[in-house]
Amino acid sequence: MPIALLTDFGTGSVYVGQLKGAIARRAPSVPTIDLTHEVEPQAVDEAAFLLAGAVPHFPEETVFLAVVDPGVGSAREILIVSCGGGRLFVAPDNGLLGLVLERAPDARAWHVGRALYASAAATFHGRDIMAPVAARLAAGEPPDALGLPVPVGALALYPAPRPRWEGRAVCRGRVVHIDRFGNLVSDVAPPGGGIASVRAVRTAGREVRAVARTYAEAAPGTPFAYVGSFGTLEIGVPGASAKRALGAARGQSFETFFVNPEEVEG
Amino acid sequence: MPIALLTDFGTGSVYVGQLKGAIARRAPSVPTIDLTHEVEPQAVDEAAFLLAGAVPHFPEETVFLAVVDPGVGSAREILIVSCGGGRLFVAPDNGLLGLVLERAPDARAWHVGRALYASAAATFHGRDIMAPVAARLAAGEPPDALGLPVPVGALALYPAPRPRWEGRAVCRGRVVHIDRFGNLVSDVAPPGGGIASVRAVRTAGREVRAVARTYAEAAPGTPFAYVGSFGTLEIGVPGASAKRALGAARGQSFETFFVNPEEVEG
Amino acid sequence: MPIALLTDFGTGSVYVGQLKGAIARRAPSVPTIDLTHEVEPQAVDEAAFLLAGAVPHFPEETVFLAVVDPGVGSAREILIVSCGGGRLFVAPDNGLLGLVLERAPDARAWHVGRALYASAAATFHGRDIMAPVAARLAAGEPPDALGLPVPVGALALYPAPRPRWEGRAVCRGRVVHIDRFGNLVSDVAPPGGGIASVRAVRTAGREVRAVARTYAEAAPGTPFAYVGSFGTLEIGVPGASAKRALGAARGQSFETFFVNPEEVEG
Repeated sequence: MPIALLTDFGTGSVYVGQLKGAIARRAPSVPTIDLTHEVEPQAVDEAAFLLAGAVPHFPEETVFLAVVDPGVGSAREILIVSCGGGRLFVAPDNGLLGLVLERAPDARAWHVGRALYASAAATFHGRDIMAPVAARLAAGEPPDALGLPVPVGALALYPAPRPRWEGRAVCRGRVVHIDRFGNLVSDVAPPGGGIASVRAVRTAGREVRAVARTYAEAAPGTPFAYVGSFGTLEIGVPGASAKRALGAARGQSFETFFVNPEEVEG
Repeated sequence: MPIALLTDFGTGSVYVGQLKGAIARRAPSVPTIDLTHEVEPQAVDEAAFLLAGAVPHFPEETVFLAVVDPGVGSAREILIVSCGGGRLFVAPDNGLLGLVLERAPDARAWHVGRALYASAAATFHGRDIMAPVAARLAAGEPPDALGLPVPVGALALYPAPRPRWEGRAVCRGRVVHIDRFGNLVSDVAPPGGGIASVRAVRTAGREVRAVARTYAEAAPGTPFAYVGSFGTLEIGVPGASAKRALGAARGQSFETFFVNPEEVEG
Repeated sequence: MPIALLTDFGTGSVYVGQLKGAIARRAPSVPTIDLTHEVEPQAVDEAAFLLAGAVPHFPEETVFLAVVDPGVGSAREILIVSCGGGRLFVAPDNGLLGLVLERAPDARAWHVGRALYASAAATFHGRDIMAPVAARLAAGEPPDALGLPVPVGALALYPAPRPRWEGRAVCRGRVVHIDRFGNLVSDVAPPGGGIASVRAVRTAGREVRAVARTYAEAAPGTPFAYVGSFGTLEIGVPGASAKRALGAARGQSFETFFVNPEEVEG
């Protein structure tokens, strides 16, 4: 069973290398897949969004090891979570698994046992506790051998505001991720999944009224809204960076205005 | 058979992670190798150069999945190309395979069938169409099961000017890639492969007359020309960045002046 | 046996991709693990530190391929080193293995044979000589088949000053690595391994008196000293970058003042 890795260590940092070494020590034949290590440092909400968005694209039998851990060395627990279909998660209990848990009503959870904390560096539980636990899960050990069951209701929630709908016409969301191209990725999922019902987006002090299905259909140099590969609304600028063009930043508001549903169908 | 990946997604971006997840879903035991994800966004010519230069260093039995795809969602086709020796390529039909095709007179090509476009996100054919196709090829399915044959002559060509020779004394090429060290990598391959015949290079408004076989043989701090690991001429500055020292940019001209062949031999 | 890679090529540069291709050509079933490719260009001392610090976290049966090679093309030799427990190393003989050798009294060494230099690009021995050698070692060939024995005492030493102790009260070390978070990683290992004996650190013209066991125990925004995941002292700033806050640079001095051992115990 492969282990998918998501951290804020920075791609190619030596900490990622050590994490993989620690996995290879316990489970030499388990492949690892880098989901991303480019989460903004300590941005638990971004990590939660990227993780939940990626899960459906991975094999059902996967261990997800997610380490964005500003509370390392504090009293926060380390979690094992099992979801339907063979998916397993190892992460600090700080809300990183918040969105995954919302989508998995059958989830079960464990706190990693204290015996596994022995000889861990105080600042790197990812390498010294979480990676070995993920490796043992990937090699087939059951969660019950590694931790104590805990009710899912007791776990930390997603640590940022969720999109708020005002009727069916307005949704107040956030920019949760900005990708390498400068596209602004929001947490607003349009009803029905398409772009047809979107009237306008207000973000970074700008109102964007252009919408299109793809980059190829949009006007070069002009900000436009589209449904991105996370299934949520994004703002992009063909041939340029929306981040730069709009002076946008992760976390800022992303207000979306929808046309009246009757109008769309009519 | 491994899958080698080349994209402009940015190393460690979550899109690379999703691509690998999509491969693992269809072919869990197929290893992936990151060729590079640092192609300049939408620079199809740079991708074509880096791909063609890397192919000889990979196993003959490799599937190359190359995604630099400014036309995603438009009418451009997705290609499967088979070259001699077991090499397979999956890429958009936008010239990305242009240089590979020039070097493979026995190449054959297919358009990926429309049935495989079903349920693809409009903005991410790499993950939803090309990755599954590459995975199925790597797992042994024949191209004929995934697409319809198309004549190689109908495919898009390399989308940038090729080096132009004026007799045997001058070659007008381009800077096609700038590496992390700031070295300027050109598309000018010196006749015979060595540096001995190079008299000077003019690029970024500067004439570089120093030539050397290696960094260790060049003068610290001084721009010099050498034959790099792509087999083409490069400009470097020992201990510094030629990009910064010369104020150079990708795409600019790279004029090379050669000594009279009789002089070299004489 | 896996191959762990450490270079200064830049994560995701096409040179890393070519290195992996060259390995896959000779040993298709050998997995590679990226330790890091983010070593500062040509910083042999940083590479030596990161390598030695990572080795204990990898499986005992690992080939470490380390390429930071400013002397490529010069007369410097290429080394194979074998340490206790099945660990093998391939690297240029420029001090990159200096710290590994200090910790391995039973090490043995070989110079890679000249026959393996044939057809190597003058500027890329990593791809054309070292990667194939590492692949053959990982596939089980003995070092004697690839090179000639050389006495360990003849190898290049670690190329930077080591920490100097003045009695038990002061240690003059250096900042050997700055990580993505801006933490300053030093080469000063506190006696006993803990933070309790540290009185203050002077670096980048600042004296840091705050010490803590973890980030969670330190004051936000304030520089503090702690024992990092390399087992050496680091300076960090919770929620910010110590590099920026202190205007620090790799290589600068890192003076550590310890309390009188009797005081600690008393």
